[in-house]
Amino acid sequence: MERFKLDALNAATSVEFVTALANIFEYSPWIADAAAAGRPYATLAELRDAMMAVIEKASSEDRMKLIRSHPDLANKTQRAAGLTADSTSEQDGAGLDRLSSNEFILFEQSNNAYKAKFGFPFILCVKRHTKDSILDAFRRRLKNSAAEEEQAAVAEIGRIATLRLAQQVVSRDELPVFGHLSTHVLDSHAGKPAAGVEVQLVELSRHGESRTIVKTVTDQDGRTGRSLVHGRPVPMGTYELRFKTAAYYTKLGVALSDPPFLDTIPIQFSIAEPEARYHVPLLMTPWSYSTYRGS
Amino acid sequence: MERFKLDALNAATSVEFVTALANIFEYSPWIADAAAAGRPYATLAELRDAMMAVIEKASSEDRMKLIRSHPDLANKTQRAAGLTADSTSEQDGAGLDRLSSNEFILFEQSNNAYKAKFGFPFILCVKRHTKDSILDAFRRRLKNSAAEEEQAAVAEIGRIATLRLAQQVVSRDELPVFGHLSTHVLDSHAGKPAAGVEVQLVELSRHGESRTIVKTVTDQDGRTGRSLVHGRPVPMGTYELRFKTAAYYTKLGVALSDPPFLDTIPIQFSIAEPEARYHVPLLMTPWSYSTYRGS
Amino acid sequence: MERFKLDALNAATSVEFVTALANIFEYSPWIADAAAAGRPYATLAELRDAMMAVIEKASSEDRMKLIRSHPDLANKTQRAAGLTADSTSEQDGAGLDRLSSNEFILFEQSNNAYKAKFGFPFILCVKRHTKDSILDAFRRRLKNSAAEEEQAAVAEIGRIATLRLAQQVVSRDELPVFGHLSTHVLDSHAGKPAAGVEVQLVELSRHGESRTIVKTVTDQDGRTGRSLVHGRPVPMGTYELRFKTAAYYTKLGVALSDPPFLDTIPIQFSIAEPEARYHVPLLMTPWSYSTYRGS
Amino acid sequence: MERFKLDALNAATSVEFVTALANIFEYSPWIADAAAAGRPYATLAELRDAMMAVIEKASSEDRMKLIRSHPDLANKTQRAAGLTADSTSEQDGAGLDRLSSNEFILFEQSNNAYKAKFGFPFILCVKRHTKDSILDAFRRRLKNSAAEEEQAAVAEIGRIATLRLAQQVVSRDELPVFGHLSTHVLDSHAGKPAAGVEVQLVELSRHGESRTIVKTVTDQDGRTGRSLVHGRPVPMGTYELRFKTAAYYTKLGVALSDPPFLDTIPIQFSIAEPEARYHVPLLMTPWSYSTYRGS
Repeated sequence: MERFKLDALNAATSVEFVTALANIFEYSPWIADAAAAGRPYATLAELRDAMMAVIEKASSEDRMKLIRSHPDLANKTQRAAGLTADSTSEQDGAGLDRLSSNEFILFEQSNNAYKAKFGFPFILCVKRHTKDSILDAFRRRLKNSAAEEEQAAVAEIGRIATLRLAQQVVSRDELPVFGHLSTHVLDSHAGKPAAGVEVQLVELSRHGESRTIVKTVTDQDGRTGRSLVHGRPVPMGTYELRFKTAAYYTKLGVALSDPPFLDTIPIQFSIAEPEARYHVPLLMTPWSYSTYRGS
Repeated sequence: MERFKLDALNAATSVEFVTALANIFEYSPWIADAAAAGRPYATLAELRDAMMAVIEKASSEDRMKLIRSHPDLANKTQRAAGLTADSTSEQDGAGLDRLSSNEFILFEQSNNAYKAKFGFPFILCVKRHTKDSILDAFRRRLKNSAAEEEQAAVAEIGRIATLRLAQQVVSRDELPVFGHLSTHVLDSHAGKPAAGVEVQLVELSRHGESRTIVKTVTDQDGRTGRSLVHGRPVPMGTYELRFKTAAYYTKLGVALSDPPFLDTIPIQFSIAEPEARYHVPLLMTPWSYSTYRGS
Repeated sequence: MERFKLDALNAATSVEFVTALANIFEYSPWIADAAAAGRPYATLAELRDAMMAVIEKASSEDRMKLIRSHPDLANKTQRAAGLTADSTSEQDGAGLDRLSSNEFILFEQSNNAYKAKFGFPFILCVKRHTKDSILDAFRRRLKNSAAEEEQAAVAEIGRIATLRLAQQVVSRDELPVFGHLSTHVLDSHAGKPAAGVEVQLVELSRHGESRTIVKTVTDQDGRTGRSLVHGRPVPMGTYELRFKTAAYYTKLGVALSDPPFLDTIPIQFSIAEPEARYHVPLLMTPWSYSTYRGS
Repeated sequence: MERFKLDALNAATSVEFVTALANIFEYSPWIADAAAAGRPYATLAELRDAMMAVIEKASSEDRMKLIRSHPDLANKTQRAAGLTADSTSEQDGAGLDRLSSNEFILFEQSNNAYKAKFGFPFILCVKRHTKDSILDAFRRRLKNSAAEEEQAAVAEIGRIATLRLAQQVVSRDELPVFGHLSTHVLDSHAGKPAAGVEVQLVELSRHGESRTIVKTVTDQDGRTGRSLVHGRPVPMGTYELRFKTAAYYTKLGVALSDPPFLDTIPIQFSIAEPEARYHVPLLMTPWSYSTYRGS
């Protein structure tokens, strides 16, 4: 995707500015339009705050129109009719295009219950979520009052816009939208990093199938390079890291029992803050291991 | 089941002795018959060794007859015709009465390949095995020569007999047939045993469904009472202990993230020696844990 | 020492009863005398409570006389004149007969400050203390009011009496006066208990010399037998367990760096509750270790 | 100190080159003189290898003269007479200017035994050593033959020269002379880095006094900045890291026992490879901790 430079946007005509940022807010170029007057913006954060201020100051009707411009989550009818390209890729990332029939029913029931209660679509920044955490959010937010829920919707719209700005506009400041999830395997039997260990990151699912996110091998320092989920928030949800311990020790010639006491080591953990740093190391011997939230 | 006393067996008539021990070896009372003359036996171990010596000294034909007296594993046809009561309960313990269709095919193929190669049934002390480890044993033993396999069969018959003697005859000595598998949960956040933690022991299966063996709760000392699998060998195979960590800390009022970083902690391990002592403790905080093969 | 049976004391004459228990409270047979009338006592705990009730109900003068019957701690002059045999052995156990000159000065200053403020000797159940924790107690209790301190003295007299009763009288109930301090060495490199590891327990001292309390070797199960400090409270204070790790691995033929990364592993910890259970295990490899308060 | 650039040395006159590098080898400018002809050197490693080749090819007499140009370790008489500035600072770094009388005797005996056996001074690259490891080296090398020891001396001269070159000459390549020793404190009670923990690094000594090398406080990430010993090899020897755990938790308001179970946590370890990477983290709660050789 071509990325705009903040400086260029500051120098552009109003029309160019609005065209460039038209879909930062779903089908709502009027927000960019109102923000054009406030230029120049020194940082991306300032631009984002100015756009959000437009929404805060808008009439109740305009705010509701903005909310209604958003698609239902996982609504196959709407999908056929077409979402913005951004919405489609965001929803696919969370696995909403691969729902089990069980999950599909849960999403449909949740969507329907939500629309029946509030009369507008459920809005969530899905890049920060897994299928499970979306269903959790439905459950929690269905208890809200209409006023609370309008506020919640605007907050999520802000998160979506922040992510889109971070992707589409280059600036000297960086919006804090990227999470970090890494691991590190230490071989305490040999007293050194464990190189060549197969590692898998699996997103667990309560109602559908778990799916492998990353399959990799540790390097000479026992690490797996950059963040396992990089260039984006790490979706809230439950994961399992799986380490092929016995295969590693067998390759080294370490004598193991048959079958080995530890073969694949699973570490289950949940991400609660998609923009935070999660380091989940494994210290292991053929007979013991430990893990912790590191830094 | 009524248990005989070794002293009583020593004092009994030959007929009584043979009747009592007729099925220590599947449908082969002649072994007890030959061992009757060697009485008195000071210990159960001596009696067992004497019976095994009868087999060693028997003619090749008699030994093969003994081998052929054993049922095929998981052969539904034979099951209808009737095994000894002991064989039936031993095979059910390993889950052979609850095979998935996938597993059923694997067992049938293995049985057929084995009989085709060796001409006699595959004998294994199933009380020491899970479905997975039985399939592993098939694979390994199918590579044997006929002579090696005859020896392997006799060794397994000895293991079966040892277990039956331990169950049916009371003596001052105990045959080492019981395994031990225990856990212990330490709460390193509070510096004391973790009481009231839900723990599940699950037997994992490569080709069928995993099944829960034990569901329990830790006591005041963080333990689960006696061995999780007691009064028998711990079947060779792969298991998972699952600890409900977040539920425990929530009950204590410890603040956790939402969702909690650690919710259910799974520990996967394999049993290689069914009569050995396996202690698999968990040291945990809401943010870290470790485990090891303890004692 | 000959131990009396509670049943015998219940059946004895008053004079025999008082003679037997005369020194449960330092030079104060009147307490036993008053408690004789309450017989029979079903348990040792009842007898102890009855004796303590005598003190509670005594006149203020009698209570103060009891307090004054106790020796100064570490007062060499009084020592020459003679304490009861019990007091002498209790004070020696805490190392009060081996004070450094620095410590001697601190004890003398504390004693003098205490007597100057309160006019009666500082009473402490020294079997529950080390030199360091006695000096800590002086510091803390010197801030008390006279009334608080009279109460504190009676509480300590109760602890001393409880210990003496537990030692001198046999009953079906046991007074909870024994502490427990144990260790356990697991070799996570080999996946089994570490047998033959040299272990030392050292009492650390802030003002004098540290002293070795126990020097032992782990058994086949990686343990050191009964409690490292047994048959008594574990004195409050700071300790160090020292494990000869490199020597153990060298004996096993495990290759280590030169010098070994870990040679002697020191674990420093403090006892706050002399009657509690302290289990301080060591899980080790040549390159890592962990410890925790276990159970 | 002014540092030369390798490019400048390549372009300089022979006299300038020799003057600049005269003391890379103790009082032996003839080595630089012979190496001048081989210019230009692309890397510092090439220059070092060329200089070492001069020594290898030199006559036995010249090599011995080079060896004899080195000072005795810790010889106070020679110190008065004057070493090169480099030798003095190197020996002070190892603590040779602060020997206990016990250590002084050991050094003198070792020096004398060495000179008596070999007739030339004991040469060691002391920047890679502590007092203890120097005495260990004496003990080990005193068992050598004269030929072995001549070789050992030249190898140490090479290490000394490598370090001096790394310090005095700037090049695009870096000679691998720097070690790394770091720590990291994770608070597993809170699930985050432990900030504000006082940490001390102490060099332990078998025959004299231990001395504190570094006293610092962990930063927001639980680290202590750059390597605890930086810009040089980490001297072979035994160290203790001491962490003020109870003070940290008290500051956070975590309830501890009195005295706290863990107050200062000592971690003892040895450095065997002065140029290697040693990472010695601490994972702790108020009731448990672990450490390992990390990376």
